[in-house]
Amino acid sequence: MNDADNSPYSHTPEPGEVGLVEPRDFVHPQPFTFDCGQSLPGFTLRYETYGRLNAARDNAVIVLHALSGDHHCAGIHSLNDRKPGWWNNLIGPGKAVDTNRFFVLCSNVLGGCQGSSGPSSINPATGVPYGISFPFVTVRDMIRAQKLLCDHLGITRLAGVIGGSMGGMQALQWGIEYPDFVHRVIAMATTARENAQGIAFNEVGRQAIMQDPDWNQGIYGKGGGPRVGLAIARMMAHITYLSDTSMDRKFGRRKKSAAPAASGAALDVQFEVESYLKHQGESFINRFDANSYLYITRAIDHFDLPGTYGSLEQAFAPVKAHSLVVGFTSDWLFPPEQNRHIALALLRAGKRATYAQLDTDLGHDSFLLESPQIYDLVRDFLERA
Amino acid sequence: MNDADNSPYSHTPEPGEVGLVEPRDFVHPQPFTFDCGQSLPGFTLRYETYGRLNAARDNAVIVLHALSGDHHCAGIHSLNDRKPGWWNNLIGPGKAVDTNRFFVLCSNVLGGCQGSSGPSSINPATGVPYGISFPFVTVRDMIRAQKLLCDHLGITRLAGVIGGSMGGMQALQWGIEYPDFVHRVIAMATTARENAQGIAFNEVGRQAIMQDPDWNQGIYGKGGGPRVGLAIARMMAHITYLSDTSMDRKFGRRKKSAAPAASGAALDVQFEVESYLKHQGESFINRFDANSYLYITRAIDHFDLPGTYGSLEQAFAPVKAHSLVVGFTSDWLFPPEQNRHIALALLRAGKRATYAQLDTDLGHDSFLLESPQIYDLVRDFLERA
Repeated sequence: MNDADNSPYSHTPEPGEVGLVEPRDFVHPQPFTFDCGQSLPGFTLRYETYGRLNAARDNAVIVLHALSGDHHCAGIHSLNDRKPGWWNNLIGPGKAVDTNRFFVLCSNVLGGCQGSSGPSSINPATGVPYGISFPFVTVRDMIRAQKLLCDHLGITRLAGVIGGSMGGMQALQWGIEYPDFVHRVIAMATTARENAQGIAFNEVGRQAIMQDPDWNQGIYGKGGGPRVGLAIARMMAHITYLSDTSMDRKFGRRKKSAAPAASGAALDVQFEVESYLKHQGESFINRFDANSYLYITRAIDHFDLPGTYGSLEQAFAPVKAHSLVVGFTSDWLFPPEQNRHIALALLRAGKRATYAQLDTDLGHDSFLLESPQIYDLVRDFLERA
Repeated sequence: MNDADNSPYSHTPEPGEVGLVEPRDFVHPQPFTFDCGQSLPGFTLRYETYGRLNAARDNAVIVLHALSGDHHCAGIHSLNDRKPGWWNNLIGPGKAVDTNRFFVLCSNVLGGCQGSSGPSSINPATGVPYGISFPFVTVRDMIRAQKLLCDHLGITRLAGVIGGSMGGMQALQWGIEYPDFVHRVIAMATTARENAQGIAFNEVGRQAIMQDPDWNQGIYGKGGGPRVGLAIARMMAHITYLSDTSMDRKFGRRKKSAAPAASGAALDVQFEVESYLKHQGESFINRFDANSYLYITRAIDHFDLPGTYGSLEQAFAPVKAHSLVVGFTSDWLFPPEQNRHIALALLRAGKRATYAQLDTDLGHDSFLLESPQIYDLVRDFLERA
């Protein structure tokens, strides 16, 4: 008498939804040498896949996450999940990154803290977390590790690589490093060269972490560490992901409570925007490792394609992929000009490149918007013959 | 045989320079009731003056400082001073604010920590600093205290009030609060209403301070307190005073040291911009009180002329002064539109107002630029009949 379709215990994915997904671990058992020269005897990447790899094994799309992202970019892990993966609006059956057509792969970056090897991983030689003895990671290290995962999965070619922010940096690096393997590159809200302002914000976040006495030179147990410093770093960074306009629309000067008369109470949370940021900080420390935050921001600081390759045109010289670069008018962290600059350099280097600039007011996080414009851009670009 | 002109012990001001100046203290011996309803039995304002008050006592110009500024806006305190007052380029004999013509007055704000009454002042009732038992301060409190100083000095009318950032807020408030006393208002790089992004940045700075264990609910001795938190707050705020372009020009990605191979060392200062910010943080904690930082940022958060008076036009209804509002294209803390908005509201309210927008790339701090454009604007506006 059990009607499976109506049973709360079975799950039929919503049309267009990836539905229930499970992360897996790729354990690479051979030594891996980082750009810094240090090696590990092996590493783990936690990843998820949606859709099916075709017979030619050439329909994979890698989704690349930003600083605080992870491998869970679509679907849900449990029917109780309040939220799906972070780019669920873009990825799914019939969506812009169509899992009926593509085999979508997303891994937590090397140096991360969501299952991939990073500073919070246990060092087998000592039995305690690596902490800051973990090798310093670059964006190039991240994508070289992803390539080993692709090889492991038998992928013969990537139909596309796509990411925003640090994900966009990885996408560009993919096109440079593995030109014969990457068919299309989509880089959004990103830069070819982290500039002084970006480094400066990253450094303030790192100082908040490292000056927290609980950081203790990176030595701390699970659930411990510099929670105060990490929350402050996150609160600050979160402001840089939004825009003046979007914050004013979302919060304005609305108050949580009437302005208090007592002097000390004037320092309590009064405005909604304060309460929002506080929540952002507090929820972040429960899911992110402070040492990973240090490592990944440093990887971003060191991302400098023109500096590394002599010029941006030289950096792009090996690229064979067709690239789509997307900038957002309200993004002041990686402003449209920095994105446009990438596309122009690709063109100057004789590559196929398209630049799209979208008029949004959400700021840097615009690449995550529920926006038919973004969906159309991505769909058309990936599915072009 | 002593030639006074060449003696290292005498001082002849350079042409155009205010030269040696001395701060003085105004002790107001009567009770002062703050906007929050709390009172103090009296207060002190530390101030400096340059030039001479004329016989009619109506040639005074008040210079209003920003968050981290003080009363020392021009001249030097000693021949060994490495730097003159913070607006020395604008103020002096023959300069834009001409001390041959005007009696220039600048006081450290109420709630400050450079000699005026604030949280670091000793509470005579307890013999220890007020800390956060000091009354919560508003921008209006600051200028009401300044008015008492003007009365004490016998000033009959202000030829002008001038300030940038929070100094601009004070300038606007002066025009509203004492319409018959203020002849000209100059407000630069400011806003009529602190918006969500501004409150957010202020709050991150406050959290960095208040979460520092050495803050101790605001109870600490001279030279102690949350030095780490205050330095982080300052580092972050300093980024908001500059612009992407100016930081890139000044620092770019230049490194202090070669990129280190050892992993932990990757977290040391590497980029010049990091070293600069570190210096900004470290020098700030030696001159600024953390509780004052909390108080003054809160005063800025609560600055909201449209909210306080019903609308910006209603706020400006009593104004009799002619106002000059100056916005700077690269200022993303108080962008040009927010400045233009002030001038437009003044005009809509039937007041005489001028808006000037200057194309600079220094960011919010542009109002401090050595800029003939600024000098001409200010000089012409103050000296107009």
